[in-house]
Amino acid sequence: MTDTNLTAVLFQQNDLRMEDWPIPAPGPGQVLLEMQRVGICGSDVHFWTKGRVGDYVVKEPMALGHEASAVVSKLGQGVTSLNVGDRVAIEPGVPCRRCNHCKTGRYNLCRKVRFCATPPDHGNLGRYYVHDADFCFKLPDHVSFEEGALLEPLSVAVYATNRGNVKLGDTVLICGAGPIGLVCLLTAKAKGASQVCVTDLNASRLEMAKNLGAEFTVLVRREAPGVTAQAVEGALGDKADIAIECSGAPSSVNTAILSTQTAGVVVLVGVGHEKVEIPLLDAALREVDIRGVFRYANCYPTALAMVASGQVDVKPLVTHRFRLEDSLQAFEAARRGDGIKVMISCDRKA
Amino acid sequence: MTDTNLTAVLFQQNDLRMEDWPIPAPGPGQVLLEMQRVGICGSDVHFWTKGRVGDYVVKEPMALGHEASAVVSKLGQGVTSLNVGDRVAIEPGVPCRRCNHCKTGRYNLCRKVRFCATPPDHGNLGRYYVHDADFCFKLPDHVSFEEGALLEPLSVAVYATNRGNVKLGDTVLICGAGPIGLVCLLTAKAKGASQVCVTDLNASRLEMAKNLGAEFTVLVRREAPGVTAQAVEGALGDKADIAIECSGAPSSVNTAILSTQTAGVVVLVGVGHEKVEIPLLDAALREVDIRGVFRYANCYPTALAMVASGQVDVKPLVTHRFRLEDSLQAFEAARRGDGIKVMISCDRKA
Amino acid sequence: MTDTNLTAVLFQQNDLRMEDWPIPAPGPGQVLLEMQRVGICGSDVHFWTKGRVGDYVVKEPMALGHEASAVVSKLGQGVTSLNVGDRVAIEPGVPCRRCNHCKTGRYNLCRKVRFCATPPDHGNLGRYYVHDADFCFKLPDHVSFEEGALLEPLSVAVYATNRGNVKLGDTVLICGAGPIGLVCLLTAKAKGASQVCVTDLNASRLEMAKNLGAEFTVLVRREAPGVTAQAVEGALGDKADIAIECSGAPSSVNTAILSTQTAGVVVLVGVGHEKVEIPLLDAALREVDIRGVFRYANCYPTALAMVASGQVDVKPLVTHRFRLEDSLQAFEAARRGDGIKVMISCDRKA
Amino acid sequence: MTDTNLTAVLFQQNDLRMEDWPIPAPGPGQVLLEMQRVGICGSDVHFWTKGRVGDYVVKEPMALGHEASAVVSKLGQGVTSLNVGDRVAIEPGVPCRRCNHCKTGRYNLCRKVRFCATPPDHGNLGRYYVHDADFCFKLPDHVSFEEGALLEPLSVAVYATNRGNVKLGDTVLICGAGPIGLVCLLTAKAKGASQVCVTDLNASRLEMAKNLGAEFTVLVRREAPGVTAQAVEGALGDKADIAIECSGAPSSVNTAILSTQTAGVVVLVGVGHEKVEIPLLDAALREVDIRGVFRYANCYPTALAMVASGQVDVKPLVTHRFRLEDSLQAFEAARRGDGIKVMISCDRKA
Repeated sequence: MTDTNLTAVLFQQNDLRMEDWPIPAPGPGQVLLEMQRVGICGSDVHFWTKGRVGDYVVKEPMALGHEASAVVSKLGQGVTSLNVGDRVAIEPGVPCRRCNHCKTGRYNLCRKVRFCATPPDHGNLGRYYVHDADFCFKLPDHVSFEEGALLEPLSVAVYATNRGNVKLGDTVLICGAGPIGLVCLLTAKAKGASQVCVTDLNASRLEMAKNLGAEFTVLVRREAPGVTAQAVEGALGDKADIAIECSGAPSSVNTAILSTQTAGVVVLVGVGHEKVEIPLLDAALREVDIRGVFRYANCYPTALAMVASGQVDVKPLVTHRFRLEDSLQAFEAARRGDGIKVMISCDRKA
Repeated sequence: MTDTNLTAVLFQQNDLRMEDWPIPAPGPGQVLLEMQRVGICGSDVHFWTKGRVGDYVVKEPMALGHEASAVVSKLGQGVTSLNVGDRVAIEPGVPCRRCNHCKTGRYNLCRKVRFCATPPDHGNLGRYYVHDADFCFKLPDHVSFEEGALLEPLSVAVYATNRGNVKLGDTVLICGAGPIGLVCLLTAKAKGASQVCVTDLNASRLEMAKNLGAEFTVLVRREAPGVTAQAVEGALGDKADIAIECSGAPSSVNTAILSTQTAGVVVLVGVGHEKVEIPLLDAALREVDIRGVFRYANCYPTALAMVASGQVDVKPLVTHRFRLEDSLQAFEAARRGDGIKVMISCDRKA
Repeated sequence: MTDTNLTAVLFQQNDLRMEDWPIPAPGPGQVLLEMQRVGICGSDVHFWTKGRVGDYVVKEPMALGHEASAVVSKLGQGVTSLNVGDRVAIEPGVPCRRCNHCKTGRYNLCRKVRFCATPPDHGNLGRYYVHDADFCFKLPDHVSFEEGALLEPLSVAVYATNRGNVKLGDTVLICGAGPIGLVCLLTAKAKGASQVCVTDLNASRLEMAKNLGAEFTVLVRREAPGVTAQAVEGALGDKADIAIECSGAPSSVNTAILSTQTAGVVVLVGVGHEKVEIPLLDAALREVDIRGVFRYANCYPTALAMVASGQVDVKPLVTHRFRLEDSLQAFEAARRGDGIKVMISCDRKA
Repeated sequence: MTDTNLTAVLFQQNDLRMEDWPIPAPGPGQVLLEMQRVGICGSDVHFWTKGRVGDYVVKEPMALGHEASAVVSKLGQGVTSLNVGDRVAIEPGVPCRRCNHCKTGRYNLCRKVRFCATPPDHGNLGRYYVHDADFCFKLPDHVSFEEGALLEPLSVAVYATNRGNVKLGDTVLICGAGPIGLVCLLTAKAKGASQVCVTDLNASRLEMAKNLGAEFTVLVRREAPGVTAQAVEGALGDKADIAIECSGAPSSVNTAILSTQTAGVVVLVGVGHEKVEIPLLDAALREVDIRGVFRYANCYPTALAMVASGQVDVKPLVTHRFRLEDSLQAFEAARRGDGIKVMISCDRKA
């Protein structure tokens, strides 16, 4: 196979192939990017194994990948904010810029957003990719390409903790110690949370949470949500100021509500089921607010500042590394749930 | 029966009696009040007919009534904000003033609040009653005692619309056209809501909503929440910016979520069931926030300003009037659901 | 002179001429507009008489006008939100859509905004004009073109009252009863302000304020700010919750601070001097926040909803009317300070 | 002199004496405290050397001291939140609990607050002192009495950074590297500020700021505010997101405004002059908000959480230590500006 622009393309469920694509040309306000690192996200794996995520169905071949860093290779017309050779992190969603959500600063809710590797929009797991320049964030020299790629999950955490209004001195419950739960942990600590408790079904994930700074962990078994909530309250000494639910499990949503203080907030990062039965009376009478999360908006600058200033160290999150040519093996590792984050090198010499 | 301080006392479920009590003495910071008007609230009726509301159970005889106005009759030690003869509205909940919720301005969530006619605290449906002076709000001469008593449900509406952040130009869905739904309607309009749609199972209540300013009404039958939501969207031309759920029916909570715009808010004023199944995925992904309401805090001054300035006319809400001596008949009228608000005159000459 | 696209062009200070310009072509996402009504703003007059406003200097011939309504005449590529024949109000500033301010919802602060009749960008006082479709707001049939043009000053008022967080039951001081002060009055009332006090040097303007709903007015003479503040406090019965300063006079800024309650807000809509001496100690210790205003963002939809729903009646603001051909006379009337708002008809048959 | 309750009493300007006072008795809701550590604040010194701070004038003998920790010695009636022997930090202001500011969570603005060592209220620099129990915060065993006393200045910093909305990834300018500037630095970092620049006239203070974590420092000489602002901008690479002005110097207020980003906030912690000339046009047009600070509200729990969790280390701030008997020497050290914080031990065996 020639390698002009080797790209990982999902044709349909369980049919991921490396294809050679032409190099695209940047339009006005865009840049051509020479891809460097792309992390694999749970949604990438889900598209591969299920052919869909919720209402988003893979109907046409689609390039995967949306947690990425790159080098600017060519400038489209009118681009002045970047130069060729700049090292950048890529915020993967480009909104319409014209709807009410875009104008009011909540562009993540734009219905016309083009988001990498969400059908019908291609991702950036390949050699080259074109993106709007203002959604590329220049990396300082001391921030690595891997760190740049990790700004994507970190932005989810910045947004989730923003939605929960996590602040100095707060106690925080994080349900789920997968990659998103772990970056939420790091970010809550960076915002000054004084105590964080993390729950998971998996003891080794909780070990990782401990290593990354969680004061408390609670291993969830199949007990009732109220029982887990009591364990959380026992660990923290009181209910949490904010709960960030990252597992998507209905029982965990229930635990989150029951574990949150009167006047607190439950943030739903992961939601797995269309309908969920929740203790609504308790939430309402104690004014525990329930707030969902859809991706993020205006979080890349914060995520970059966190990493660039050394406030958080995201490097331990990368546990597996592959070359672009070996993307299929990378996806298999991710599907097995090996480690935390699987990272792919897209540059030819890696 | 002598009538030193005739008081409507609930002994237990279905056992409401008029008793003659001694006149209480005001403590430091308190005032003795000569009661004037007391409205009957759904919770009063519920205590009477069920002996409980949720976890609050009537175990000892308890005076009913918490929507009240009065005349100051005697000042306790240190009271300088009021004078004997002042006409006042009574905010019925006095918090501990010392806990974290009290100090941060959310005193409605104080666990030690004493709230009129919530066991074990007595209400004020009688001739005399003692209350903390700073929870008595002086009425201007042109505001009647009935209007003063109605500041209580109006405060619920001020708080609910605050929680929903109802503002100029918003479209609002109000589920339920009982007394609370109707004051939410009046308050949403006073805040500048441009279009309000009200739903109810009862056509005559919707007629009242129309008369009080609702642009649209939707009669709910036993159809699926999604069907009602479509009717609401059809009426408003789009989903509502904010939904205020006042019915407590699970199906209506579902309608409220489905009828609310992306980035909007659902406020739960009435919650009837401990556990409710809701379309959580839809709410989360569209970032429709869910916020409960427990009574109100810092709303009496606003409610009074609304009435005193003539911005709202609450007088049409009072459809039935009784004398204190006839409180049992008043409660029977309220139980039958006659009209909207049943009002009791507590002064001897009424 | 031929009249293909008759346009009012300011060549330099005191040199306003009617010129015939070619009809421009709409680019992608834009529409060609057949102009209907354009109001004259103080800044238009200021550019004409001074050749500049602050740092904005007229160096090249520039079309004036930015308070405008129009009919859509032609659609540029990709426009689907509007149809030919639609009646629209024009939000005059189109931001870059790419900077941090644009992305966070504060696009009025975008440094690259193109704003009608602010050098070097042309205004829309002519027969035809091209604008981005998403900054054109469709008018319902019952909203007139004059009302559409008045959405511009009304948006200033929506924004100023947003910045001041004017809400139900608040008392508001408005300094200055010119067009902006008057729309702030209307908007504060529409948001539920219970009492508004307006100050001005001119008694007839205060009369207009009274007619438009001000509860109180205070005629300012050359007395000290503290004296005016006492008069305001006397009228309102207390300091104001929020002050909105629209005059730009340093003494009035001082009055505004001194007249505002502890924990209140002073909004600066008009600022006339680069440096102003203010009672900073009083503002700081009483936590009276000082917030400036630069144009507006996300306010046209609200302004339109206010007018369309009948919550405010802006029609009395238009006191003088001229035809496009007579623009010079219109500007002379505006310079004399005749009435409140001078409105120009741009359609040929007007 | 007997030593029942040795207390440092300011009789008038420059007349500070150690007196033996009787031990006071705790009223309902209060506790008797055996004082442990009391830090000297600039305002204590100012009362001593000037006999007043602003409008607060020492007219009667007044005990000094308000940065304090203690051991609970006796419980007043009804106190259940504390036990005899508990180690506590003392929040020195007890508000009326009844005014509008108290009820809305801004109790620092209460006009009837009793605040230690602000005339006519006594401070707590002595052996014994009585205080309301709910304004005493229990210290965990690993938090020292010195750290407990330092929660007072730390609360000022928590409040100031709250008012400025300092958050993760922000850049912050702090004007003034005295004790308050330094705790603002620590607190801004604990909230996740990525870069902090500190200014001062004194190079050794800036050295301390560097040691405590400031990324940048700017030595201020007598240059124009615009020049200092350029140096700040040069250091940070851009204007600051938030400026916290702690010096009270008018030139520094000007620097703060000029150094703050469009849409940013300037917080005024120190204000030294009644009237200050500021670049109001620049602040207004760039929407740089100006917010004052009066003490703090609801900040002790956060300050305690910061210290208890090890997020900040305030111990290096204490540079001088004295015994209660030697209070006069302690005040002389504080007046000379020796070191940063002078701490007095009030227990007999210290």
